[in-house]
This record gives sequence, structure tokens and C-alpha cells, in this order.
Amino acid sequence: MSRENLMLQIHQIQDEMLVMGSLVEQATMQSIESLKKRDIKMAVEVYNADRKINEKRYAIENSVLILIATQQPLAHDLRLLAALLEVSAEIERMGDYAKGIAKVVVNLGDFDIPVPIKEIDQMATLALSMLHRALGAFIIEDGETAKSIPAEDDKVDEMYNKVQRLLVNLMIEKPQNIDHANLLMWVAHNLERMADRVSNICERTIFVTTGELVEIESKKKEIKL
Amino acid sequence: MSRENLMLQIHQIQDEMLVMGSLVEQATMQSIESLKKRDIKMAVEVYNADRKINEKRYAIENSVLILIATQQPLAHDLRLLAALLEVSAEIERMGDYAKGIAKVVVNLGDFDIPVPIKEIDQMATLALSMLHRALGAFIIEDGETAKSIPAEDDKVDEMYNKVQRLLVNLMIEKPQNIDHANLLMWVAHNLERMADRVSNICERTIFVTTGELVEIESKKKEIKL
Repeated sequence: MSRENLMLQIHQIQDEMLVMGSLVEQATMQSIESLKKRDIKMAVEVYNADRKINEKRYAIENSVLILIATQQPLAHDLRLLAALLEVSAEIERMGDYAKGIAKVVVNLGDFDIPVPIKEIDQMATLALSMLHRALGAFIIEDGETAKSIPAEDDKVDEMYNKVQRLLVNLMIEKPQNIDHANLLMWVAHNLERMADRVSNICERTIFVTTGELVEIESKKKEIKL
Repeated sequence: MSRENLMLQIHQIQDEMLVMGSLVEQATMQSIESLKKRDIKMAVEVYNADRKINEKRYAIENSVLILIATQQPLAHDLRLLAALLEVSAEIERMGDYAKGIAKVVVNLGDFDIPVPIKEIDQMATLALSMLHRALGAFIIEDGETAKSIPAEDDKVDEMYNKVQRLLVNLMIEKPQNIDHANLLMWVAHNLERMADRVSNICERTIFVTTGELVEIESKKKEIKL
């Protein structure tokens, strides 16, 4: 197989990866929407749709491994294929978080608790925007953009802290809220973790472009000594 | 290269993976120890040791990819090599959780708050025991053991809920505890996530033995409909 042909096949896998990314975006938005509307049916749809995302990941993994085994790519191309394995794994796990949010909606039922939906919405919007741009940067191998995105994780963390504070106040006001407020804590957690996974995707993009693996940590997450 | 030779090389990589696993075990125990003793110096050591774990992962990844590219393994051997990529990534991320716990210890300083250390200790012990056995099952390709381990995640979740409840009570009793109790919440979260990652390792073991990828969910984590 010529290198052009190899690149063509890699591009096809990348397209699949982008489809996977948009499935996860959709699932996340729908999970938040189901929380907003307390729509259990919609939440169950998100929950069940996760299977499709998982299948996509395994299909991508399979294609990548066969390509590595049969085409013996080296240097940049091998890094790119390895990155596709890692990135599709990260996207799949983000899908699990969307599924986790859907699960909260189901377990929350119609229990009367004020959901800090504005803040949760903002967290989801920012996390998904980060994902969208991170995948774009991965495709065009734009290391500079990949380097800049993880810093936005600080904003997600700030929102997360705000949601947490609101929920703790709800618990303090009415201890009978504790169980349900804890469920909502999971929603915020899952969104926070999504943003973390975007940083992993960005690390891989940098690796593909430079051959160097660096662990990016946002400033706020660095240890204070 | 003969298949015997390939298997020999794979076994060498597996040995490296076991070393990585024991580094993570050590880091986790040490992070809990530093929390127990409020020993910031020890916590900083854990934080810094994470670099070594990351390097091991990338070395393993590199060896695996080169082996796939140059030896063109198929079927079981290709699945096993792919599994080594996934498992070493999971172990590395578990190392990040130990690092996260160390960070909490540093940020907690000597703030006077009762740490639910007994429960945290139990969580760590169980999570690490799960990891240990999961890696053992991976090495000997024991699918049955791999299938049985994720169920223990329910126990970790139970302990997690207990810690959460204790911490929420601390917040309710003394709202000035909120920030520090939240930090402790992260410790419990990180341990809970570790156990989740063990389940991913078990899924891979099943994949290696059967060729089928299944997403194992513990009973309690399944959606209640």
C-alpha cells in the first residue's frame, strides 16, 4: 500500500472518530435537556444510545490495529494511529459520562429539588465546545490550539465549584435533599471529567505533531507548594 | 521472528506492566499514609513520583506499537497487544488519582477537620486488592476471575457513599468545614474511580480470552427503570 493509500485509510478512520465525537455531543446535550425537562423517556434514550458509541470505538480500534499490523507504519504515521486509539477511547468514556447523567435523571424522577440548571448548562456547553475544538485541532494537527484548550478547564472547574456550593447549601437547608443533591453532584462531576478527557485528547495531538508526550495540567490543578 | 520469540517479547512488556501496577499500588498507599499522618513531604513525593509512572506507560506503548508494526501479529496476539495498550493507560490514570490524593493532602495542610480515615483506608485497600487480582487475571488470561472482580465495585461504591455522608454531615455541622470537606470528597472520588478503572482492565481480559468486548456494569450501577 502506498503512503497516499495509508493516509486515505487513516482519514476514513478519522471521519469515523468525528462521527463518534458528534454522537457524544448529541448524547450530552440530550442528557442535559432531559434533566431540564425531567424527561425520563429521553434520558432512557441517551442511556441506550451509548451502545452505539461503544461499538464505534471498537470498530475504530479494530481498523487501527489491522492497519498497524498490515501496513507497518512508522514515526508520525504510527503516532497518529496510536493517537486514534487513545482519542477514540477518550471519546467513548465521555459517552459514558453522558449516560451517567441520563441515569441521574432517571433516578431523580420528579423529586422536588431546585436543579442549578443554568450552571450545569454552562458547564456542558463549555466542555462540548472544548471537545469540538480539540477534535478539530487533532484532525488538522494544530498543536498550538491543542496546547491552548486545556487552560479552559479552569473555567469548568470554577463552574463545578459553584454547582457544588449550591448543592451543599441545598443539603444544609433541607437534609432530606441530601440523596438527590448527591445525584446532581454526579452530573456536575461527569461534566468536569469530560473536560479532563478533552485535555488528554489535546496531549495526544501535541504528541502526534512533536513526538513528545507531555502531561498538560491547568494552572489551578497544579500542586500549591 | 518466531511466535515463541514474539510471546517472549510480549511477556517482557507484561512484566513492565506489572512493575507499573506495583508503582501505582505503592503511590496510592503512600498517598493515604500521608493523609493519615498529614505528612506534606510524603505527599509531595507521591506527586513527583507520578512522572515515573507516566514514563513507564509511554515506554510500554512504544514497545507495543513497534511490535505490532514489525511483527504483524493477528487474532489473539493482536488483541493481547491492544489490551496491553489499554491496560497500561488505565494503570497510568490510576496513578493520576494517587497524585490527586497527594495534592489534597498538600492543600489540606494542617486544617483541623476529622478525616473519615477508616472508611477511606478500606476503600483504598479494596480498590488496590481489585487491581492486584485484575492484573494477575490479565497475565494468566483468566476470564472467569476477570468477570467476577467488577462486582466488588459495589462495595467500593457503598463505602464511597458512607464517606460522602460523613463529609456532608461535617459540612452541615460546621459550614466553615465546607472547603476542606470538599477536598476530602475528592479523595473518596479518586478511590471510587480507581475501582472503575479496574473494571475496564477486566473487560479487556475478557476480550483477550474470548474476542468479545463487553461493557461490565456492576448491578448497582445499572439504570433502575
